[in-house]
Amino acid sequence: MPSHANSLALLRAALKGDRVALARTISAIENEGPGSTEVLDTCFASTGRAFRVGITGPPGAGKSTLVARLAREYRTRGETVAIVAVDPTSPFTGGALLGDRVRMGELAGDSGVFIRSMATRGSMGGLAVHTAQVCDVLDAAGFSRILIETVGVGQSELEVAQTADTTAVVLVPESGDAVQAMKAGLMEIGDLFVVNKADREGSERAVMAIRSALELRAPRDAWDVPVLLTEASQGTGVPELAGRIEEHLEFLSRHGELRRRRRERLEQRLHELLRGQLWQEFHERLPATAWQGAVQSLLERRATPHQAAERLIAMAAKA
Amino acid sequence: MPSHANSLALLRAALKGDRVALARTISAIENEGPGSTEVLDTCFASTGRAFRVGITGPPGAGKSTLVARLAREYRTRGETVAIVAVDPTSPFTGGALLGDRVRMGELAGDSGVFIRSMATRGSMGGLAVHTAQVCDVLDAAGFSRILIETVGVGQSELEVAQTADTTAVVLVPESGDAVQAMKAGLMEIGDLFVVNKADREGSERAVMAIRSALELRAPRDAWDVPVLLTEASQGTGVPELAGRIEEHLEFLSRHGELRRRRRERLEQRLHELLRGQLWQEFHERLPATAWQGAVQSLLERRATPHQAAERLIAMAAKA
Repeated sequence: MPSHANSLALLRAALKGDRVALARTISAIENEGPGSTEVLDTCFASTGRAFRVGITGPPGAGKSTLVARLAREYRTRGETVAIVAVDPTSPFTGGALLGDRVRMGELAGDSGVFIRSMATRGSMGGLAVHTAQVCDVLDAAGFSRILIETVGVGQSELEVAQTADTTAVVLVPESGDAVQAMKAGLMEIGDLFVVNKADREGSERAVMAIRSALELRAPRDAWDVPVLLTEASQGTGVPELAGRIEEHLEFLSRHGELRRRRRERLEQRLHELLRGQLWQEFHERLPATAWQGAVQSLLERRATPHQAAERLIAMAAKA
Repeated sequence: MPSHANSLALLRAALKGDRVALARTISAIENEGPGSTEVLDTCFASTGRAFRVGITGPPGAGKSTLVARLAREYRTRGETVAIVAVDPTSPFTGGALLGDRVRMGELAGDSGVFIRSMATRGSMGGLAVHTAQVCDVLDAAGFSRILIETVGVGQSELEVAQTADTTAVVLVPESGDAVQAMKAGLMEIGDLFVVNKADREGSERAVMAIRSALELRAPRDAWDVPVLLTEASQGTGVPELAGRIEEHLEFLSRHGELRRRRRERLEQRLHELLRGQLWQEFHERLPATAWQGAVQSLLERRATPHQAAERLIAMAAKA
């Protein structure tokens, strides 16, 4: 483990373009290693320049391929790109690393692209906070676009998607009737919708279903949510997708909406950070055996969860 | 809103079999209404008798139909059944209520069945805690089996599934290669696997793929995870599913695993409850303008999230 001074030296190297140092800095943040607070504090002042683009959708929608193609498209537009893939794959499959290797093949050797997978590791919440922190480091490192790829099903994953400035929801023709997407809460968070694998049957029907579902959505602003067709494996539709993402970012900036969204996200992040910190401080004040004793009292129904919680809070207050 | 005394009177009626009172009691718990702590405290002592069965899987797997059929099967076995459907459908679709009505058609008029949908309502975490609390009320009300139906994708939803004693993961032939289920973390949480809509092409292949994926799973205990075929719309395979669920519950009881699991779940629940309570107490101690001031300082990069959190904690400590 690097010491505090080491981690700041590592960060300096990372900010100068050393990709190995960048990867190690991010690992230290993920592991909440020594010096990670200082690293984050240093980075934060330089954040806010990158646009953060969320790419989310059900497993199997072809997000990874689409993200790789989108990164390539952004490169031709002169942007530098960091990809943060939040992968809930369980540790035993090694899926995150595998995904990286597949992608690396497509984007290898381009120093204007940086790819990072984050495993969820079963951490209780806090995933959105960690993702935002990693994005801060990448933002400070000067990448102009950060693509955050998440499996967009489930509350925590939706929270991750919402650390982004704009969010594209990726579906496939088979998820056609849009009911599934509605169930997963995806219809509400998308600023853009993409029907990927558009060569498959039913893609036009899927577009129509998504449009109908969007009509049910509470109106928010003057942005006309586009529904695009892509075939990521061939790159078809990707330049248009990039174009529409950029349009939305411009739209957000022009209408003060970017600032409003970023404020909301910083607020959410502060909330999550505080919850974590309050828990940690509390837990450190507890006598060693108090926690297990409380759990035991629940198991034997000598106390209710509420009573056990009250007792532990009282104990910590006295300590 | 009912007062504390009212809510306890309501609970007493609920525990005597008044279903309207039961529904209203659960609403009060969900809304954290006045008296809900007392209601939960009263219920907790009578919990631990019902078996809680999680039914989870991707949207479109046919979970609702399967759960309705399973409830009917349990009724023929002489059990009483409560169904808790945790539905992340957004408020505007009214999906939760709709699902209830569809199910009610199948099970209407049977006082041995109670159905309750819970919407996630975008609450930040805490969903698993709420679900466990609602199950406590149903447990105290004397239902012998509680079926917890969740869309099993995403971290929060997996946490909900894990409030159950045993969990069945429902897939369809199309989710065949099991890779999607692995990505969603489902392969790790299932005690039983079900390939529903087994009349569709590929169901045998799906069973084999799930079996292969299970071989990659870290061995846990001597339970041989079954992979079953069902056709919920016809009821095919449902009696066998119920039989295997019961076998697993017996297995858990016999090997001390039930107690271990319940302990772990109570521990998790206490943790979540405390986190919520610590936040609430903290937030109440903060001066009125402190929170917005902190968010503003973040937006203007005058403070980092870490610094803002430290300052707020210091303010609350002084208050």
